[in-house]
Amino acid sequence: MPEANVALIGYAFMGRAHSNAWRQVSRFFSPKLTPRMKVVCGRNRSAVRKASRTLGWEEYATDWREVVARDDIDIVDVSTPGDTHAEIAIAAAKAGKAVLCEKPLANDVREAKQMLAAVKKAGVVHMLCHNYRRAPAVMLARELVASGKLGKIYHYRGTYLQDWPVDPSVPLIWRFDKKVAGSGSLGDILSHSLDLGRFVLGSEVVEVAGLMDTFVKQRPRLDNPRKKGRVTVDDASLSLARFANGALASIEGTRFAPGRKNYLRFEVNGSRGTIVFNFERMNELEYYSLDDETKVQGFRQILATDPSHEYFDKWWPGGHIIGYEHTFIHTVYDFLNAVAAGRQVKPDFEDGVRNQLVLDAIEKAAQNKRWVTVKPL
Amino acid sequence: MPEANVALIGYAFMGRAHSNAWRQVSRFFSPKLTPRMKVVCGRNRSAVRKASRTLGWEEYATDWREVVARDDIDIVDVSTPGDTHAEIAIAAAKAGKAVLCEKPLANDVREAKQMLAAVKKAGVVHMLCHNYRRAPAVMLARELVASGKLGKIYHYRGTYLQDWPVDPSVPLIWRFDKKVAGSGSLGDILSHSLDLGRFVLGSEVVEVAGLMDTFVKQRPRLDNPRKKGRVTVDDASLSLARFANGALASIEGTRFAPGRKNYLRFEVNGSRGTIVFNFERMNELEYYSLDDETKVQGFRQILATDPSHEYFDKWWPGGHIIGYEHTFIHTVYDFLNAVAAGRQVKPDFEDGVRNQLVLDAIEKAAQNKRWVTVKPL
Amino acid sequence: MPEANVALIGYAFMGRAHSNAWRQVSRFFSPKLTPRMKVVCGRNRSAVRKASRTLGWEEYATDWREVVARDDIDIVDVSTPGDTHAEIAIAAAKAGKAVLCEKPLANDVREAKQMLAAVKKAGVVHMLCHNYRRAPAVMLARELVASGKLGKIYHYRGTYLQDWPVDPSVPLIWRFDKKVAGSGSLGDILSHSLDLGRFVLGSEVVEVAGLMDTFVKQRPRLDNPRKKGRVTVDDASLSLARFANGALASIEGTRFAPGRKNYLRFEVNGSRGTIVFNFERMNELEYYSLDDETKVQGFRQILATDPSHEYFDKWWPGGHIIGYEHTFIHTVYDFLNAVAAGRQVKPDFEDGVRNQLVLDAIEKAAQNKRWVTVKPL
Amino acid sequence: MPEANVALIGYAFMGRAHSNAWRQVSRFFSPKLTPRMKVVCGRNRSAVRKASRTLGWEEYATDWREVVARDDIDIVDVSTPGDTHAEIAIAAAKAGKAVLCEKPLANDVREAKQMLAAVKKAGVVHMLCHNYRRAPAVMLARELVASGKLGKIYHYRGTYLQDWPVDPSVPLIWRFDKKVAGSGSLGDILSHSLDLGRFVLGSEVVEVAGLMDTFVKQRPRLDNPRKKGRVTVDDASLSLARFANGALASIEGTRFAPGRKNYLRFEVNGSRGTIVFNFERMNELEYYSLDDETKVQGFRQILATDPSHEYFDKWWPGGHIIGYEHTFIHTVYDFLNAVAAGRQVKPDFEDGVRNQLVLDAIEKAAQNKRWVTVKPL
Repeated sequence: MPEANVALIGYAFMGRAHSNAWRQVSRFFSPKLTPRMKVVCGRNRSAVRKASRTLGWEEYATDWREVVARDDIDIVDVSTPGDTHAEIAIAAAKAGKAVLCEKPLANDVREAKQMLAAVKKAGVVHMLCHNYRRAPAVMLARELVASGKLGKIYHYRGTYLQDWPVDPSVPLIWRFDKKVAGSGSLGDILSHSLDLGRFVLGSEVVEVAGLMDTFVKQRPRLDNPRKKGRVTVDDASLSLARFANGALASIEGTRFAPGRKNYLRFEVNGSRGTIVFNFERMNELEYYSLDDETKVQGFRQILATDPSHEYFDKWWPGGHIIGYEHTFIHTVYDFLNAVAAGRQVKPDFEDGVRNQLVLDAIEKAAQNKRWVTVKPL
Repeated sequence: MPEANVALIGYAFMGRAHSNAWRQVSRFFSPKLTPRMKVVCGRNRSAVRKASRTLGWEEYATDWREVVARDDIDIVDVSTPGDTHAEIAIAAAKAGKAVLCEKPLANDVREAKQMLAAVKKAGVVHMLCHNYRRAPAVMLARELVASGKLGKIYHYRGTYLQDWPVDPSVPLIWRFDKKVAGSGSLGDILSHSLDLGRFVLGSEVVEVAGLMDTFVKQRPRLDNPRKKGRVTVDDASLSLARFANGALASIEGTRFAPGRKNYLRFEVNGSRGTIVFNFERMNELEYYSLDDETKVQGFRQILATDPSHEYFDKWWPGGHIIGYEHTFIHTVYDFLNAVAAGRQVKPDFEDGVRNQLVLDAIEKAAQNKRWVTVKPL
Repeated sequence: MPEANVALIGYAFMGRAHSNAWRQVSRFFSPKLTPRMKVVCGRNRSAVRKASRTLGWEEYATDWREVVARDDIDIVDVSTPGDTHAEIAIAAAKAGKAVLCEKPLANDVREAKQMLAAVKKAGVVHMLCHNYRRAPAVMLARELVASGKLGKIYHYRGTYLQDWPVDPSVPLIWRFDKKVAGSGSLGDILSHSLDLGRFVLGSEVVEVAGLMDTFVKQRPRLDNPRKKGRVTVDDASLSLARFANGALASIEGTRFAPGRKNYLRFEVNGSRGTIVFNFERMNELEYYSLDDETKVQGFRQILATDPSHEYFDKWWPGGHIIGYEHTFIHTVYDFLNAVAAGRQVKPDFEDGVRNQLVLDAIEKAAQNKRWVTVKPL
Repeated sequence: MPEANVALIGYAFMGRAHSNAWRQVSRFFSPKLTPRMKVVCGRNRSAVRKASRTLGWEEYATDWREVVARDDIDIVDVSTPGDTHAEIAIAAAKAGKAVLCEKPLANDVREAKQMLAAVKKAGVVHMLCHNYRRAPAVMLARELVASGKLGKIYHYRGTYLQDWPVDPSVPLIWRFDKKVAGSGSLGDILSHSLDLGRFVLGSEVVEVAGLMDTFVKQRPRLDNPRKKGRVTVDDASLSLARFANGALASIEGTRFAPGRKNYLRFEVNGSRGTIVFNFERMNELEYYSLDDETKVQGFRQILATDPSHEYFDKWWPGGHIIGYEHTFIHTVYDFLNAVAAGRQVKPDFEDGVRNQLVLDAIEKAAQNKRWVTVKPL
């Protein structure tokens, strides 16, 4: 297979997950392009050097502008915090690189639209890394809806619950700083639930109501834990929404749900059945079908680890489950094939803009205490 | 124990459940008043006669006005559809009877307030039958919150999902008629989720957003199934809410969730833990506590069937579960003791008014597409 | 409907459950005989008098011999400890009464056979109260096997786990005395798991291996808690078994499983599917079918509360669950119909003998450390 | 870190899992020896060449004797079917290599003992790959027992259920051939349940009863699917057992449980609590503790993905689950550290012999229909 040289910008949590994906994809799948892990880029020289070795990159660099301009780079993978996505991705697009960008596409609609314009103008393949779409059980959920097995869709009920900052002594890291993170629970986690709703329903959100709050308003500063600094993002975000297909939705993200570690759950009710997914049991999908004989109707706990389930034939025998990191491997697999074929793949920067338009509307709706229509693309 | 003569108005679904409660309460509990099932009242003479025998009432009658005026009646139990509650309950109060009224208290705020005024003026004991409060697992939930074990409450996430009318061929019964039922999913089921939120949190809703819809707009008429009549109530109702204690809430009721038969579920997140209840497994409460040692923190599935759990010492050994009907028995047990003592018991008509005020606000919020402040009592 | 006068012998735990069944059956079902709760019998006059009132019996008595001989008694319900079953049931049979006997039929095979011979000779209707058979979910399990939906049966995996005497300070009550109880976990709980296996599979056990032990060998005496007396029964009993239909089985009962309150669980694997039941969630049956499309195969959690499920059309709407006591109501309902029709009903005294023959074989197998063939009826 | 050159013998299912472990271990962990994937060995030249590239080995070879004799090889990893383990591992030991051997150690006790003798004589580090021990949730189970939190252990209830050959058209692969596989369900899967029991309880099995059967006695031959050949191994194996610490056990393996894909489940009951594990939800451990306050006792569903759980601090944030393959990574991590330190690590070849002695006893017990004492090491 031909090779493609990859440059990764950012090497923290997301950088580790993306590196693993690039490293593993050809061991289990046969993408039409074999990725070569050329260079990883970060600002701190010693840290990025160490990361390059641990994560398996051939080179390291500290100036992303140089990296994205290199002739030998085919793919740029943007895994930095959201406030830097636009600048990097736009430069990469201008340099003609295929771009994979970690979500959120950007911290606001304006930047997101600029990014979309840039990749379109450059004619490069672009993808947004909403990895959760590519859990086999989520792919099955999408398929059940798309095939009509659930009938007309009435409800999407999505929550993304976490608990890591419930303790007020958790310090004021960048995720609590609106300038860097854009928002808190809204862009970080509600956005995942929103993206899954759009994906599984195959429909767009048209109007929203919102409710947002910050429960712990001050936290210990990183530079001086004895002093406190102000949290400028939301701890919890709730929304009601109406999809274009008529479905009513409730979409919520909160970091203040003790015991919920990565509880990205959704339930879809249609006229013929219901499906339920929860990422903490990401290998499973619950499915209730009114097409079953009445007496034996029940929620099926489908273990989506059969060769018939998307991606799983490349892994292990049924029941030998996979984990969080595998969703990234599936993502880069599809991305590599798209780059090889020169065709688009979903979710892409357009999805990034669409997601951001909804988040934007939720924020406005919460501020103004009224329903807000989501702006067109 | 002294006896109290009971008159039951209405003998359908709720009448059966109430009758069972009156019949069973003294077999397992020792209320300070022993109920005597004196008379059941309904409009159809032959049907109510049959019901009197089956359900165990000494007499039957067809005119509720005569019944509530009888000198030998101590307690009037109102189990008719919502549009008749006010008239009956007010007459009973004026006649000096203790009144147990099935929820909803009334179909609108005006009537509900008249009822509250009437029982207050008459000085009679009044109770609203929100039976779900009295599942032992729900009592435990309330206790955990009230004791402070959950810390400061951040979230109430309530849903009441059913599926009985998903099939469009379900006919146009009274529950689809706004004149009789007042509303659909809103008053029938969202109201339960709301009442449990108020009960478990011990706090009142201050403002709401709403979203309501009717998915199946016409249904076969009862008198002529080949013709269709218009559904005048909501199939689904969703709301966002803020409680006085600062908790953010999402409260939903829908009849269009295939597989959900009586899925009255709530989750409460506080600064020290989380609880989850689902009526379809009404003997269980899930509880996560940050006070547990980190390594063994997990959602506990508490089987609330221990003698230490409210009411259960009167039933069976642990693990020998109880069911739906038992919540009514617990309700009349507490009501009888309240009547015996001449003191109030919760939930009462005031709760009925408060619930109605919130439902009213949700309906307005949904109509006007903006947040609405809940009116004071 | 014609009436049948019932006499209940014994008024403790089982007596309460049986009384409730007699009291409730005609309120929800229409048995072809209406039971009249004539007399309850016990040795302690003041206690039985009190019980008669609480439980709803017209009269009380202290001499069971007189009671079973009374001309006006049609049905004798034996709810005493196992060592007295034979004498009472045989006398009742001789007096021509229909007999309902709480399990175990007797404490040993000899007595059980005498009882079977007596009822056969007398030609009376006889039934053994293995109430768990009549949970709607268990009836559904039986139906799925009998209909062939599970294909050829390969495995029955039954456990009945409890935890009430894990604490060594639980005193030396009659259940720890071999003379009264016959055995411990074996006859008390493993017997239920065995009976369910025979019922659901519709096949008989042909040979067994066994393992029994007593973990807490001495307990505080009831008469003097500071002294200890010897436990003469088993705390735990395990067996391997082969059914006549070729299925391999594991059947276990233990009182030493902390957290398991009434965990009567079974799993049946056949060539076309699997079913799982657990009494602590007695309204549910799990069902996996290889006949489902591969991609959506999964364990269905069937909420057996639909009108299509046995008995449930007489109770509440779907999802409004029932509890432990209802299994007794179903039992007496079927018994009353059998008595009215003068036909046999299962399980009967023959089942009692068959169960006892297997328990006997397990005990011998455990003692002799070898497989034992179950003796023929 | 110093490097160690690894040779892998076998590249099928287990070879893929082992290769992944060698490849990934240094990316997430910092073992005291860095593995270098030197050579993979198999009999089919073109297949092993392809495997070497896909799985990431520097070289490939077809003669394992040459490979294990190479001076530049430090570690030999034996991932072939069981009938070849002894010869390869003994040669590797004689050549002074550290040996990691996939389970079962051998197909019979004689060979297993020879292997143990060989590694002891050679003084090399040896490890048996019972990967399931190293799921973080299983490590936690072991810790809870070892720490005394479960009190005195009364029961181990282990099952390993699968369903892949339920369909009689599954062909006669090597796993159905006693000469190659040694046994069927017994050595393949019951052995895992047995090993987990020994590990979690920290005690040895002293005596057993057994029950084994072959449900599908003939299967289509691989060379000519229209002809059938005889299955010479067991489809299902059940045992009762007594551990040295007094615990009673039931240990079962079957391949005939539809819907159970990799249902390696165990339950341990002790005087202070209970734990339950199921590999299909391998990130979770259920834990019930009598030390909790009575009113809130319940089975905790511990998501063993916290940094406080063994190995997990090297992976992802809590709730971001891991999968099957990670248990192998943990295994080689511990093995590499042991090799670096020149000390033993568990499970080792001694565990392999002990497991085999128990399997041997179960087989004899099943054949002779009596309890069999497990022979000493």
